[in-house]
Amino acid sequence: TEIGQRLQSAISSNGGGGDGAVSREAFRQAAVNTLERRLFYIPSFKIYRGVAGLYDYGPPGCAVKSNVLAFWRQHFVLEENMLEVDCPCVTPEVVLKASGHVDKFTDLMVKDEKTGTCYRADHLLKDFCKEKLEKDLSLTAEKAAELKHVLAILDDLSSEQLGAKLKEYGINAPDTKNPLSDPYPFNLMFQTSIGPSGLSPGYMRPETAQGIFVNFKDLYYYNGNKLPFAAAQIGQAFRNEISPRQGLLRVREFTLAEIEHFVDPDDKSHPKFKEVADLEFLMFPREEQMTGKPAKKICLGEAVSKGTVNNQTLGYFIGRVYLFLTQLGIDKERLRFRQHLPNEMAHYAADCWDAEIECSYGWIECVGIADRSAYDLRAHTEKSGVPLVAHEKFSEPREVEKLIIAPVKKELGLAFKGSQKMVVEALEAMSETEAMEMKGALESNGEVEFNVCTLGKAVKITKNMVSISKEKKKEHQRVFTPSVIEPSFGIGRIIYCLFEHSFYMRPSKGGDEQLNVFSFPPLVAPIKCTVFPLVQNQQYEEVAKSISKGLTAAGISHKIDITGTSIGKRYARTDELGVPLAITVDSTTSVTIRERDSKDQIRVSIDEVASVVKEVTDGQSTWADVQWRYPAHSTTASGESSHQNEI
Amino acid sequence: TEIGQRLQSAISSNGGGGDGAVSREAFRQAAVNTLERRLFYIPSFKIYRGVAGLYDYGPPGCAVKSNVLAFWRQHFVLEENMLEVDCPCVTPEVVLKASGHVDKFTDLMVKDEKTGTCYRADHLLKDFCKEKLEKDLSLTAEKAAELKHVLAILDDLSSEQLGAKLKEYGINAPDTKNPLSDPYPFNLMFQTSIGPSGLSPGYMRPETAQGIFVNFKDLYYYNGNKLPFAAAQIGQAFRNEISPRQGLLRVREFTLAEIEHFVDPDDKSHPKFKEVADLEFLMFPREEQMTGKPAKKICLGEAVSKGTVNNQTLGYFIGRVYLFLTQLGIDKERLRFRQHLPNEMAHYAADCWDAEIECSYGWIECVGIADRSAYDLRAHTEKSGVPLVAHEKFSEPREVEKLIIAPVKKELGLAFKGSQKMVVEALEAMSETEAMEMKGALESNGEVEFNVCTLGKAVKITKNMVSISKEKKKEHQRVFTPSVIEPSFGIGRIIYCLFEHSFYMRPSKGGDEQLNVFSFPPLVAPIKCTVFPLVQNQQYEEVAKSISKGLTAAGISHKIDITGTSIGKRYARTDELGVPLAITVDSTTSVTIRERDSKDQIRVSIDEVASVVKEVTDGQSTWADVQWRYPAHSTTASGESSHQNEI
Repeated sequence: TEIGQRLQSAISSNGGGGDGAVSREAFRQAAVNTLERRLFYIPSFKIYRGVAGLYDYGPPGCAVKSNVLAFWRQHFVLEENMLEVDCPCVTPEVVLKASGHVDKFTDLMVKDEKTGTCYRADHLLKDFCKEKLEKDLSLTAEKAAELKHVLAILDDLSSEQLGAKLKEYGINAPDTKNPLSDPYPFNLMFQTSIGPSGLSPGYMRPETAQGIFVNFKDLYYYNGNKLPFAAAQIGQAFRNEISPRQGLLRVREFTLAEIEHFVDPDDKSHPKFKEVADLEFLMFPREEQMTGKPAKKICLGEAVSKGTVNNQTLGYFIGRVYLFLTQLGIDKERLRFRQHLPNEMAHYAADCWDAEIECSYGWIECVGIADRSAYDLRAHTEKSGVPLVAHEKFSEPREVEKLIIAPVKKELGLAFKGSQKMVVEALEAMSETEAMEMKGALESNGEVEFNVCTLGKAVKITKNMVSISKEKKKEHQRVFTPSVIEPSFGIGRIIYCLFEHSFYMRPSKGGDEQLNVFSFPPLVAPIKCTVFPLVQNQQYEEVAKSISKGLTAAGISHKIDITGTSIGKRYARTDELGVPLAITVDSTTSVTIRERDSKDQIRVSIDEVASVVKEVTDGQSTWADVQWRYPAHSTTASGESSHQNEI
Repeated sequence: TEIGQRLQSAISSNGGGGDGAVSREAFRQAAVNTLERRLFYIPSFKIYRGVAGLYDYGPPGCAVKSNVLAFWRQHFVLEENMLEVDCPCVTPEVVLKASGHVDKFTDLMVKDEKTGTCYRADHLLKDFCKEKLEKDLSLTAEKAAELKHVLAILDDLSSEQLGAKLKEYGINAPDTKNPLSDPYPFNLMFQTSIGPSGLSPGYMRPETAQGIFVNFKDLYYYNGNKLPFAAAQIGQAFRNEISPRQGLLRVREFTLAEIEHFVDPDDKSHPKFKEVADLEFLMFPREEQMTGKPAKKICLGEAVSKGTVNNQTLGYFIGRVYLFLTQLGIDKERLRFRQHLPNEMAHYAADCWDAEIECSYGWIECVGIADRSAYDLRAHTEKSGVPLVAHEKFSEPREVEKLIIAPVKKELGLAFKGSQKMVVEALEAMSETEAMEMKGALESNGEVEFNVCTLGKAVKITKNMVSISKEKKKEHQRVFTPSVIEPSFGIGRIIYCLFEHSFYMRPSKGGDEQLNVFSFPPLVAPIKCTVFPLVQNQQYEEVAKSISKGLTAAGISHKIDITGTSIGKRYARTDELGVPLAITVDSTTSVTIRERDSKDQIRVSIDEVASVVKEVTDGQSTWADVQWRYPAHSTTASGESSHQNEI
């Protein structure tokens, strides 16, 4: 059943119990230790004891992030000719009122009634159920089933239902055991005030999408008044989480990269769909989730043609997201596209798929790909009064039959006096069916009872009061609100999952130590290569510096390490940062290049070294390609090279 | 005099009077019209009538911005091996309390006493003085001199002085003529609340620098505990301006790129200074400003050796900033480096230079380059209790003479009982001079009067109560707070000035129209090239599409235009976006490439076209280089090419 499946996902995605959880925990600890020690990320404002849910990217993390974003721009914006925009984070209230965030962007919160400490109500209930299920050996089968059921329906509980459950289970504040308040909604937006008057409330945007929607008219014009087109934006977004957990996965400020693809609702085909139609990867359609089946490999073309995926454009983006993530280094086997269940989707959404990546915290939603239909543009049209619509000019005028309702105001005025206006409006608002019924009745009876809801009563309409007809008209264009297909990327979450998927440990040469490695592909590696003299001497140092100059000129980020540390230790340091290549200077004419994961080395002349590194790190060649072209360097060879051992 | 000079700058930087102002205004209007019409930027939330001081970058503006930032990363971060970090915008109060922003980051504001509308007090006074000077023909020479004096000292006026001036001149609210409140400080930070409790005040950061300072310890460690090193950050910053004016130049949210270069205060030499020492450009030292002389071309090496610029590191960054700005396309003749006057600088700053760019608004501060000494690290050390210091290990231990003050607690206890502790502390806190004086007095008289300020009185100290001596000690390291040299770039201001410096108009071929051109260098051009078939036919369209594919593969951002518009109009459109090259498909074997500013064309075979465009737009070759290699295409040649006329 749906619930059964959601339960399984709820348990597995939260560490669950058993040995798996222990080893996942240990793996995460090792990865996170390395990440924090090497400053991939740092809890923000650490010297002031930090702020929950805020993290800095240190130098290597910042480089990974900017590589991911550069690739995103190349893969989406440039490849698809998207219109990139850059809007402010500070947003006036009216915009987020229209989008629904002011009223609905909330989590349910409870307060410790004595200390005032706040908790997320669903977290407390979830923790209680999981703890009971894991640790209470006296639990009856019946009770266990009930707790599992609660976990499965957790997201659907209303404020009242949540409150009742907390009471029923006697759940108190975890830190103090004090009683808790009833749950109440807390808006997750950071609020502020724009300008000095205190009269213009504003918020830090919770997503970047609204900046695009409000610019639709200008962007459509910029695109030559043609559909489809996509706009894109990379920027900071903010959510004032009640109690952030899970490290980089749930934070109060994060980078989003969002695409809003505007398309004719009557034609969601995509001219480039065939380029991704043959891709096959793990998908988890609604059907499988609700019948308790696992995710399965599906060919994207089939998924669209069978209607599992709503339309080609949605399918095209699913395929492009798959390519994006796997090219970054996300493991294909721990990536799935999960379709939203009907109750997860907003009422206006046509279809929605999440790219979920499995990490030690379970399956994490990293990209949402939603067909949001015309909802957002309509909401802003209504609130602003500016029509956010598209026009389709017909190549030839089309003949359409139009209903014409023409109230005869003079007669209506005589009959209804002050109420005339309401009657006229009600007549004009009739649907085609209603109007044609009235036309028939008037023709046969000469009069008809007509309910005017603004008057709260029925009135008698006679034949001379209104003329109803159908006319053929020529139309030159169609005016409509475009549908929006929105792929939305949580960049921080993708990066964290990438860290976990890239992390492994291997024994040192002596076997006495576990060494950490990040196997980043060159595309995302924070530094593409390191340069070090094998031993400390001036000659080698000068060679190293001249190589470094060549690398800078070629635009290759690198690090030069002229410390006297053993070569093995220097390799280990560089592996921990995920640097794919290391150049060791052991002569004044040629050097060795070592590949991180295989630890294989080749010998390359000094003149060629920068271009070889560029070839591999730009992705024009693979390591295997260049390995075939240059002599292998064996660490057991005679002479100085024998120093060049791994530790 | 200093004041005379500042007056001149105050007037010239604000449009002043006369014809210059009119033509500047007209020029700006033409540039801004083009910029807004082509969506380089857009007032944010326009459909909701916008918010003052918030702007979006539309597609071409966003591309220019990301090109500027990519070049900044290449020119500074990569070239100098800086440690780039990425910290959140949301900042807890304690951090900005330590930095001084909570207490001092304010502007003086006055309120319309009836409507509550807020104004910047100095703006009202400035506007009043300027209007009088420009328009009041009956002004006496004496009065005019007074008003000029007020303009010159405007920035130095205290709240009381400003209030008095407003009263004296009878200045009322400009919109309503209502009376104004007294001026009072308004903090320019956007305030918010972190977490749900309402008890953790936070602010949107007013600069990115603090995120680097609080991470000093980790970054120093990451750099192998070695100085000097620089950290860098690009990110959003926020200032809740009272009443934003001057378009993109004074906004409420903007992108900063900041560098914090940490250096030993005893050695501010820079190993790469010689690379910039020969540069010669407009500098405006303090001396020239205060003696009423103009800015002048100075050789940077001389400026440092003569002490005009405080040290080599500061000089090195001035040189690098000069190269950065001019390579972006800023006009050398409208760029100057102005030294801060003594009263402009913070008390702790050693020296400070602003890169100012002249645009239609006058000379605009776009980059600040300050030697902030140890101020910031000391402030955070004090507030957090975490020592943000560097260590210099001596290669050999050094002998230093140390003052030893050893109070004899037993004797002091007998003499002073409960006050003993205060006396001991006061003795230990003596400076070297005080201690040596006491030693002399005790040796000659056996006793001495000693003032203990914590007791509020003097006590009698006898010889047996304290021993004072100097001892030679061996020290292995020196512990010190590094100095910070901070180049801070207002990216939006640089981009706006770049827009103005790149903008020009030229007559259409018929001479009946003025066409707009942005002469962006390829490095910053939003799109590197456009592709269009000369006439609408399927063959040419296919060639155009295959060229487009080749350009995408080469990573060149471009636009394909297959509309039936005349070729001249399409060139004009492309010039307005500052696209450097346009490819016109007029055969199936070769095409023409047209350069924007010269309008010269060359003929290139289809196979080579992508690589030629890449060569020029990557900066490997100039247009002159390739023009020499390929045949010129004359628009008056026979056949189809004759269609290819400029309008």
